[in-house]
Amino acid sequence: MFFSLPLTSFISVCGGLLTYHVIPKFREMFIKANLFGVDLNKSSGIKVPEATGVITGCIFLMVSFIMIPFTYSDYLLEQTTTPFPHSEFVQLIAALLSISCMLLLGFADDVLDLRWRHKLLLPSMASLPLLMVYYITTNRTEIVVPTILRWLLGHSIQLGVLYYVYMGLLAVFCTNAINILAGINGLEVGQSLIIAASIAVFNLMSLSGGLAHHHRFSLYFLVPYLTTTLALLVHNWYPSKVFPGDTFCYFSGMTFAVVAILGHFSKTLLLFFIPQVFNFLYSLPQLFHLVPCPRHRLPKYSKETDTVNTSMAVFRKEEMGSLGRLSLTILSSLKLASVREYTVEVDSDKDTPTMVDMVECNNLTLINFILRLAGPMHEQTLTLTILAIQVLSSVLAFMVRYPLAYLMFGEVVA
Amino acid sequence: MFFSLPLTSFISVCGGLLTYHVIPKFREMFIKANLFGVDLNKSSGIKVPEATGVITGCIFLMVSFIMIPFTYSDYLLEQTTTPFPHSEFVQLIAALLSISCMLLLGFADDVLDLRWRHKLLLPSMASLPLLMVYYITTNRTEIVVPTILRWLLGHSIQLGVLYYVYMGLLAVFCTNAINILAGINGLEVGQSLIIAASIAVFNLMSLSGGLAHHHRFSLYFLVPYLTTTLALLVHNWYPSKVFPGDTFCYFSGMTFAVVAILGHFSKTLLLFFIPQVFNFLYSLPQLFHLVPCPRHRLPKYSKETDTVNTSMAVFRKEEMGSLGRLSLTILSSLKLASVREYTVEVDSDKDTPTMVDMVECNNLTLINFILRLAGPMHEQTLTLTILAIQVLSSVLAFMVRYPLAYLMFGEVVA
Ligand SMILES: [Mg+2]
Ligand SMILES: [Mg+2]
Repeated sequence: MFFSLPLTSFISVCGGLLTYHVIPKFREMFIKANLFGVDLNKSSGIKVPEATGVITGCIFLMVSFIMIPFTYSDYLLEQTTTPFPHSEFVQLIAALLSISCMLLLGFADDVLDLRWRHKLLLPSMASLPLLMVYYITTNRTEIVVPTILRWLLGHSIQLGVLYYVYMGLLAVFCTNAINILAGINGLEVGQSLIIAASIAVFNLMSLSGGLAHHHRFSLYFLVPYLTTTLALLVHNWYPSKVFPGDTFCYFSGMTFAVVAILGHFSKTLLLFFIPQVFNFLYSLPQLFHLVPCPRHRLPKYSKETDTVNTSMAVFRKEEMGSLGRLSLTILSSLKLASVREYTVEVDSDKDTPTMVDMVECNNLTLINFILRLAGPMHEQTLTLTILAIQVLSSVLAFMVRYPLAYLMFGEVVA
Repeated sequence: MFFSLPLTSFISVCGGLLTYHVIPKFREMFIKANLFGVDLNKSSGIKVPEATGVITGCIFLMVSFIMIPFTYSDYLLEQTTTPFPHSEFVQLIAALLSISCMLLLGFADDVLDLRWRHKLLLPSMASLPLLMVYYITTNRTEIVVPTILRWLLGHSIQLGVLYYVYMGLLAVFCTNAINILAGINGLEVGQSLIIAASIAVFNLMSLSGGLAHHHRFSLYFLVPYLTTTLALLVHNWYPSKVFPGDTFCYFSGMTFAVVAILGHFSKTLLLFFIPQVFNFLYSLPQLFHLVPCPRHRLPKYSKETDTVNTSMAVFRKEEMGSLGRLSLTILSSLKLASVREYTVEVDSDKDTPTMVDMVECNNLTLINFILRLAGPMHEQTLTLTILAIQVLSSVLAFMVRYPLAYLMFGEVVA
């Protein structure tokens, strides 16, 4: 790959400007197609187009397609004697195939409102061509064993088929992790932008190393991703004029998974996902319905003060199984959740009123967790706070990655 | 490609059964998402899910993905000494990329109701990766000159960039040609099935020739296409329980274009498109608005007799330019259209009533052309008639293809 960063950046900036220009033009079309939401944290009640991530995604694909001949022009014009890099080229096309499948499936989800089982099945399906191509071109399934375990396991282990399961799960995790850290203006797009920028910085830092070709490959996707996403963020920033939809979250997650899988830096990728990992783990009791989960877990909007505050889930104690009780006990003893038990008198015609045990608990999301600590705040401040956490965790990731790699593997592989 | 027809057929049949089983389950989801139409040729007025081609397309992609490791297993398990066919493999992935992009864009069209300029732009965009890969792997842009012109032009001409324009236009033509021969139950899916079957037969006949690898490649796509489309046809047959939508037409057109481009049989493909070519040429005056074009050009339904009949476009003569007049004159003198001119008195408050010249002309589609010749008939009979014409023109294509090729090029290239 004769990757030219200035040229790629130029074409990508054009793509970004096009995205910025085009998004408002689709407003009426989306609303007419019933693809809109009403912002629950605003009192205006106006219709906001949903799923506009499909515009970003299509322009991203267009830019990526247009860049192909430029990236390979030296081979095509026979200005080099290096043999054509077939494996890398097919990886590029397969990556675009996985991303475009995910874009299709995300858009289908926004339009048709698919079930939870589809949300887990679809990213696996979309990552299939990528895994196939990985198998055919690379099939490297060994992992290096951390130094302290080498006396037991040897220098490396061949994971074989398990490695493919791991890569498939990575795609499922990335797509859904962004999708569940959502609900306030600019958050989905903002966090994705920061993750993408962090990976891009990591790639740029590694451009002189021995694995430079992987990092150039990753930048091929991230540069157009960054410009088109930035254009979307401008429209999606508080107060949102468009919502990105599941389409955008799926598309973004798959893009990150694709570059990390083909670039062999999935562990580093997960370091950039610290807030998402926390949010995912914290959400688990509600996601698996150990604790009753309301339809929306958005923070509660107060019209009077124009602020948002922690939203609570209220339910009968009997609705919760023993695993649910256990998780709430753990969370509450670690001061990670506000849990309150109380008893209410149920209206009844009988003379002896029935007493019901109730439980009140904050909804288990990072957003509510922050509001619980910091108190009510303006929606934009909340988005900025979470994005600041995302930036800080990227800084942390950079700080720990190299020492950690040295400590665990005795060498730093960039 | 170690293409195993029995194995491919087996996986494809499973895909077809899955499609058949799954389509009715999505009914409510599509209707809830506002993706439905009301059948204008029925008096029931019930809601029929639209754009169900997206289900067929997704299962088609899934089957194609799953078939990859089986098709290349001999290389992967090192049971052959032939070097891995990188060019062919990247063509396969690129073909799937173009098809999945077209599926996405078709679905976006069904949901958002895109403009005409998008309908021309989108297939070009979706065929871009394919053309890029063609450029990189093959870049064969020469065409063989027919024998009678060789004294002037030589044995072959290098078309260069023009050849790419031709291939791009082929994708635009195939996607739109199917989309405009539509409007009665089972027609879009039926004609696509017959075209696909015809190409498949042509491929099977050529499997022993020198270009066998191209035809195996084409069958890789056509076999799963045939089974999933057949499953859709069962639900789409009169009376339709689902509509395929633009999604299906775009997806189908791109699949045909892809196999013909990569298999170098685009001229033969066009022979299987004879009814579509006629319908396209016949529609031109209305498509380019030389003659005023009503919103729908569907045949007219008569509730009493449960038949459909030619639909007419009625407009003021002054609405038509000189080119429109010319085309109607030509069509009417060739007895290809029923044109009637008359004068009506316009209601007005004045004493001297204004007289207006009016023109009445049958809508210029193959469907109306047939109804004009054969008179009113039941909708199912009409579909069967057009599909019979499609079959006959495929038979004709097979009859003329080989003698024609011999006559023009002095040899038959299978
Ligand atoms: Mg959804
Ligand atoms: Mg449409």
